[in-house]
Amino acid sequence: MAHADDALSAENARLKTRVRKLKKKLKKARASVSAQNPGPAVSPLAPKSGFPAIPTIAGLRLSAVSAGVKYQGRDDVMLAELAPGSVISGVFTRSSTRSAPVLDCEAKLTALPSVPEAGLAIIVNAGNSNAFTGHAGQQTVDDITGALANLMDLPQGHVFSASTGVIGEPLPPQKITDALTDLRDGLAPERWAVAARAIMTTDTFAKGAWAEVDLDGHPVRIGGFAKGSGMIAPDMATMLAYIFTDAAIVQPVLQDMLAAGVQTSFNAVTVDSDTSTSDTVMVGATGRAGNAPITSADSEAGGTFAAALQGVLQDLALQIVRDGEGATKLVEVRVTGAETDADADKVARAIANSPLVKTAIAGEDPNWGRVVMAVGKSGAVADRDRLSIRFGDILVAEKGWVAAGYTEDAGAAYMRNQELVIAVDMGLGAGRATVWTCDLTHQYITINADYRS
Amino acid sequence: MAHADDALSAENARLKTRVRKLKKKLKKARASVSAQNPGPAVSPLAPKSGFPAIPTIAGLRLSAVSAGVKYQGRDDVMLAELAPGSVISGVFTRSSTRSAPVLDCEAKLTALPSVPEAGLAIIVNAGNSNAFTGHAGQQTVDDITGALANLMDLPQGHVFSASTGVIGEPLPPQKITDALTDLRDGLAPERWAVAARAIMTTDTFAKGAWAEVDLDGHPVRIGGFAKGSGMIAPDMATMLAYIFTDAAIVQPVLQDMLAAGVQTSFNAVTVDSDTSTSDTVMVGATGRAGNAPITSADSEAGGTFAAALQGVLQDLALQIVRDGEGATKLVEVRVTGAETDADADKVARAIANSPLVKTAIAGEDPNWGRVVMAVGKSGAVADRDRLSIRFGDILVAEKGWVAAGYTEDAGAAYMRNQELVIAVDMGLGAGRATVWTCDLTHQYITINADYRS
Repeated sequence: MAHADDALSAENARLKTRVRKLKKKLKKARASVSAQNPGPAVSPLAPKSGFPAIPTIAGLRLSAVSAGVKYQGRDDVMLAELAPGSVISGVFTRSSTRSAPVLDCEAKLTALPSVPEAGLAIIVNAGNSNAFTGHAGQQTVDDITGALANLMDLPQGHVFSASTGVIGEPLPPQKITDALTDLRDGLAPERWAVAARAIMTTDTFAKGAWAEVDLDGHPVRIGGFAKGSGMIAPDMATMLAYIFTDAAIVQPVLQDMLAAGVQTSFNAVTVDSDTSTSDTVMVGATGRAGNAPITSADSEAGGTFAAALQGVLQDLALQIVRDGEGATKLVEVRVTGAETDADADKVARAIANSPLVKTAIAGEDPNWGRVVMAVGKSGAVADRDRLSIRFGDILVAEKGWVAAGYTEDAGAAYMRNQELVIAVDMGLGAGRATVWTCDLTHQYITINADYRS
Repeated sequence: MAHADDALSAENARLKTRVRKLKKKLKKARASVSAQNPGPAVSPLAPKSGFPAIPTIAGLRLSAVSAGVKYQGRDDVMLAELAPGSVISGVFTRSSTRSAPVLDCEAKLTALPSVPEAGLAIIVNAGNSNAFTGHAGQQTVDDITGALANLMDLPQGHVFSASTGVIGEPLPPQKITDALTDLRDGLAPERWAVAARAIMTTDTFAKGAWAEVDLDGHPVRIGGFAKGSGMIAPDMATMLAYIFTDAAIVQPVLQDMLAAGVQTSFNAVTVDSDTSTSDTVMVGATGRAGNAPITSADSEAGGTFAAALQGVLQDLALQIVRDGEGATKLVEVRVTGAETDADADKVARAIANSPLVKTAIAGEDPNWGRVVMAVGKSGAVADRDRLSIRFGDILVAEKGWVAAGYTEDAGAAYMRNQELVIAVDMGLGAGRATVWTCDLTHQYITINADYRS
């Protein structure tokens, strides 16, 4: 009897494994069937809590209107107004074919005094990127920012702009200039969600984040929003982010903090390795919080503020990956033990951008051989016998081979999670880097291979 | 006890029903998938003429057998034997996690005298790459090449090997060593197609090419075969190519010609930017053609031979792209007018590896904005206003904007061709580069996201 019992138990265990595998295969087969169906209305990786309740920031007002640049029935132009005394910093795409608004922002930022006397404005439209539009592109930027400067009684050098959408098509300024009065009249401190939605292209959810810190007894707020890598044809993978704070901080320090902060946030995420002609991140500070002005990142207040800013930048950057086209998995690639940080970054990006790794993740396949391949092709110094690979806490490979206790079942079970960590230790030094990406799915192809008509 | 038994039996029955139902559902779902997205038995880009009739080469014999390494019912081990007096050269993957056979080949090639007295042999298996298999991997290489050396009465340093297939699993040498006698007994000069088929993994067609040139009155033949980027899980994107000639040529010149030749052939093709741990190209020369030995690439004979070798290398390399997973379009990316050749290469690869460009091609979308984006992200020196883009002969964009006479209809009509040329002129200098790639389709995802069980 006990013998029969054992045999049955063993068979049942086998059957359970079989059921699990069949379910998995069925899920995959069905996913392929639905590959040509429209994608989900909202990314499965979107934050469950929705758009956050970002508090108002003294000296900041936001607005949005529907100007009909391309989309109908939704807001497509956003305006942010910063009160006199505000400072602003920005980082932009390194693309050598960057758009007219990006070139304009860079020039204005360089020319702006560190403490501008007048206020500042940022205007952003969705639907047309005004990129690769020849010299007419700059004229359009001049027309829009000039008209807004007039209306708001600001120097034109204080009016920044960005455009996201189709490339190579003229952006007629009139649709936008006609909407400026409504845009200005709609300005209000609490309109975060409205502003965030107006700059979306094919994003499936609006992205916002905020933080509050105490600087010498004064609560200081940081809030911001972003749009991401909705690259449905013919749009580009444009990433835009606008962050505002009531902190008092001198401009060069804010600029340095932003430049440092993007390295481990916006520059550490990749959906498909493509770089937009329009990527823009700007941070404006109104100085109304009452804190003693931050004049160094090394001071206690400076460190506290920089950490909070970094948290907001990273939150927004990860939301962009969560909205990568067709994404069903959020993947953190964590590389340690490289000879240098630069080597670690090479390895992390080689893994995060590898189509073979990303398709394996889409298929929930613990295919660690592809991770080995990506390490090998990265160009970083590597020693096969010192390398170790973990999926989450599971040691998968070490000493040049599969780890002794590793089982394919354990790997496969881990890969079913929606959020994954692939950790590689190079075993060589102290170099480290972390990059976030998503999987590469049928839906990505469906979205991006669609003809534009 | 009886109670537990009953419960187990009941569970057993339930599980069996569940398995049966799941199998049925899976069959149905898969039927829908294959109806919707059938992977072609043979790539639509395969040469219409089939495997070429490569002439025999004096001093070369080929063989293949079925050793059951992984595949059943097909040959999976190939042997090439080069007569005494032959010389050999090779280039290998630059991956830092390269396989045991690659490391072994590199070491043997370095140690080999320029004119080996004894003959040479190359043995290749498909089904297991013997990569990332720790120190056991080298032992396997020693066992296989040692046994073959004994059998063929060759120094072990004259026996080269390669393995392609699953990564990280031990390659048991016995299956292969058991097959060596049959393999040797099957050696014959004309077995090109048999050899080419034996090294295939998920290639959809065998790849061969040949050329004949006259060197001082002597016909000299070059023939070869390759396997490509069939990367179906869990195989790697391994590219192997073996080329043979009866030319008399000194080894260092042959090595230099090969190293130069791969730059514009195997190193100029990309399916998905991923690099294998096993990529190998070897050229063996038997010296039986009767030509005066080639001692320089700069001589007339040297130039003629190098050009013919280059033609064979490029033919094989393009066949690999034609068999890229899911490929429906062969794309030549031709960059001219860059500041340097290196810059042109950066631009060409940025375009050829861009998922956004490749999905647009799959969708037959003349999305030139994505080409602009790829130029911009390449890191090469670019001036938006000097850049021009052509699809075939159609001028699409110039002077920083869409070309005056360009119509979307003309672009769309061109994109329906099976073979496409994307030409970018940077307008800056004399730097040029050409890279070949294929499109990125649903079928690529289906192949590579499949779970390995």
